[in-house]
Amino acid sequence: MPAPARHLMPAAATPQDCAAMSHSLEGLLMSSYSPQDHIFMQQALRLAEAATRRAAPNPGVGCVLVRDGQVIGEGATLQVGGDHAEIQAIKDCLARGDTPRGATAYVTLEPCSHHGRTPPCAERLVQEGLARVVAAMVDPYHEVSGRGLAMLRAAGIDASAGLLESEARRVHRGFLSRVERQRPWVTLKAAASLDGKTALLNGKSQWITGPAARHDVQKLRARHCAILTGSGTVLVDNPQLTVRDFILPQQPLRVVLDSRLVTPPDRRIFHGGNTLLVTSSTDLARHQPYLQRGAELMVLPEDAGHANLPMLMRHLAERGINELMIEAGAGLNGALVRAGLVDEAILYLAPALVGSTAQGLFAWPALEDLADKQQVRIQDVRMVGADIRINMTFAAPL
Amino acid sequence: MPAPARHLMPAAATPQDCAAMSHSLEGLLMSSYSPQDHIFMQQALRLAEAATRRAAPNPGVGCVLVRDGQVIGEGATLQVGGDHAEIQAIKDCLARGDTPRGATAYVTLEPCSHHGRTPPCAERLVQEGLARVVAAMVDPYHEVSGRGLAMLRAAGIDASAGLLESEARRVHRGFLSRVERQRPWVTLKAAASLDGKTALLNGKSQWITGPAARHDVQKLRARHCAILTGSGTVLVDNPQLTVRDFILPQQPLRVVLDSRLVTPPDRRIFHGGNTLLVTSSTDLARHQPYLQRGAELMVLPEDAGHANLPMLMRHLAERGINELMIEAGAGLNGALVRAGLVDEAILYLAPALVGSTAQGLFAWPALEDLADKQQVRIQDVRMVGADIRINMTFAAPL
Repeated sequence: MPAPARHLMPAAATPQDCAAMSHSLEGLLMSSYSPQDHIFMQQALRLAEAATRRAAPNPGVGCVLVRDGQVIGEGATLQVGGDHAEIQAIKDCLARGDTPRGATAYVTLEPCSHHGRTPPCAERLVQEGLARVVAAMVDPYHEVSGRGLAMLRAAGIDASAGLLESEARRVHRGFLSRVERQRPWVTLKAAASLDGKTALLNGKSQWITGPAARHDVQKLRARHCAILTGSGTVLVDNPQLTVRDFILPQQPLRVVLDSRLVTPPDRRIFHGGNTLLVTSSTDLARHQPYLQRGAELMVLPEDAGHANLPMLMRHLAERGINELMIEAGAGLNGALVRAGLVDEAILYLAPALVGSTAQGLFAWPALEDLADKQQVRIQDVRMVGADIRINMTFAAPL
Repeated sequence: MPAPARHLMPAAATPQDCAAMSHSLEGLLMSSYSPQDHIFMQQALRLAEAATRRAAPNPGVGCVLVRDGQVIGEGATLQVGGDHAEIQAIKDCLARGDTPRGATAYVTLEPCSHHGRTPPCAERLVQEGLARVVAAMVDPYHEVSGRGLAMLRAAGIDASAGLLESEARRVHRGFLSRVERQRPWVTLKAAASLDGKTALLNGKSQWITGPAARHDVQKLRARHCAILTGSGTVLVDNPQLTVRDFILPQQPLRVVLDSRLVTPPDRRIFHGGNTLLVTSSTDLARHQPYLQRGAELMVLPEDAGHANLPMLMRHLAERGINELMIEAGAGLNGALVRAGLVDEAILYLAPALVGSTAQGLFAWPALEDLADKQQVRIQDVRMVGADIRINMTFAAPL
């Protein structure tokens, strides 16, 4: 079944237009896929989910090869420069003593059509004699965006896209955000008492939540490319913002926003490198102590007391940061939310009350009307140890 | 099986001693009850739960009569002066053309032994020739406290107590609190945004939560004997604090704490009577406008900016208020929690963020150390419409 041509991105449309269009078509397209198709694509999506962090800044694609209802190969994108998912699945199939000839490939993102760090996957799928390729979604990356599917169809392969597309957009949200919006997918994490307090008036704050929630935060950090915090948090809490509960090939990049360089360079976050200090100070002499400790410095213009946040996001996307986690105080949290730069938040509420004088979660100027409040959508509520975890989203899905 | 004598309340022990003792014995005692016993007592507890509000200030007892594994009669305590649960169950049995002779009575509270507004139930159970009486718990009321069971055993009936006792103590918590602690069981209700804000800095506040949560609050009000609020809430929100979603034989008593009489007498809560205004003002001329609108006035000494709260609680218990609901602002909420006068809280969190400058849930002086925070226990978390509802308790169960 050829994918409808309207599913390709018209050059003049914005990425948002295309996302909206493909969402509205999804219902129509899905009806042409069988229950078996859905099951194998779900399997490919699970492989993709597990590969996402390792593959960044590439999308962590998953691929499953199937013949006569049997899985004959599986693969997921390896680290940058390594095999893409389709090639991994073909190699897996051959290693099992089988051949992909005549099989169906379920792949979470359209196979690539260009020579990047690796040869085009679409070419390899043609060479191996695949009969059918089902992609969850068209690749929005300008060098692909429908050309992979076109290449497959030109070789007589039944190639289509749109099966479980919104699930695939969720799994690939970091890559999609970077390519379509030129900024990372941003997840804010916060921990507070049930009355929304993160710290006492005197600044005391650490470990309001229990060990299970803290371990959950370690998992969250482990799947992010970078973690952003502010100078206040570094000053008061002196966090490391590292993943300690798991062994990772690469720790998330630590990003410290300190427009006036008020954080002492001996803070733990500046130890061991892998830290990007973002400042508005152009006094190079003041940069030296941070550079000597291995931190990287970036100078951005100041805007409302912070380094310009949209510029920061664009820069992080250009560096290949697909998913960014925020672990900051009320000031930076509030500024990011009000700038529309937070996609989702994960809020841990500890079973305690701290009282009104203590510090809150999100600082912004007093609202005049309750209609101006920041609306969110609750996605999940559950207990994590003795704490409540609330997952929420801020805007429509990508 | 006779109940062990140690299960009776020694005269010198405090009610708390007895509660602790009976809790520790419960595990031992339960082993002597069959699975069928548990099922029938659960049925009696459901009848009790449904009767609790109507029966106040009496305990809303439930009773199930069983012969040969078949329920032959059911009853629950009616309004004050009406039949107790046991008599209702006997009448139900007779109305079915059966007789309770030789049957087992499952009753959530020890049958009474004294002539109060009605003759003693224990006497009637003896007259009707019951073979066995299983009570969930001994009645702590000083005129009963074991005498009902003793009366039954003296007549040769197999009478015991302790089956599902902690469940019974939960169902009868209002009555038990009033008898054992000389104050009502206190449940605080609050609604806030996810960041713990109830109102804007400018005071705007109403309806932060959705219609499902507001209906849930109506249900909560309906099962309470009285609702307490403060002058700030009356001034700013002008609430009625009535139950409108259900028809009740008796609306909860509305209690307004206004130590300096700052609430204008034209506020809606003073309309239609059924309002108790608690003040520290002894200026009788200033009482007049409230009295003219049908409010009742009580003068209590002022203590830390409020009418003395423990005295208020004792007075409400003396009036027969078993369960008191709090719907107030941060000041009164905070004072009640810090005075140890709140037993549980139900917090509705709306899917929105309002920002740090807005008003919080619980006001008290700034803590010096996080160890001084008010610890709570989460009992239940669920969605109510688009809002999150969190049920928590503040202290050990009664």
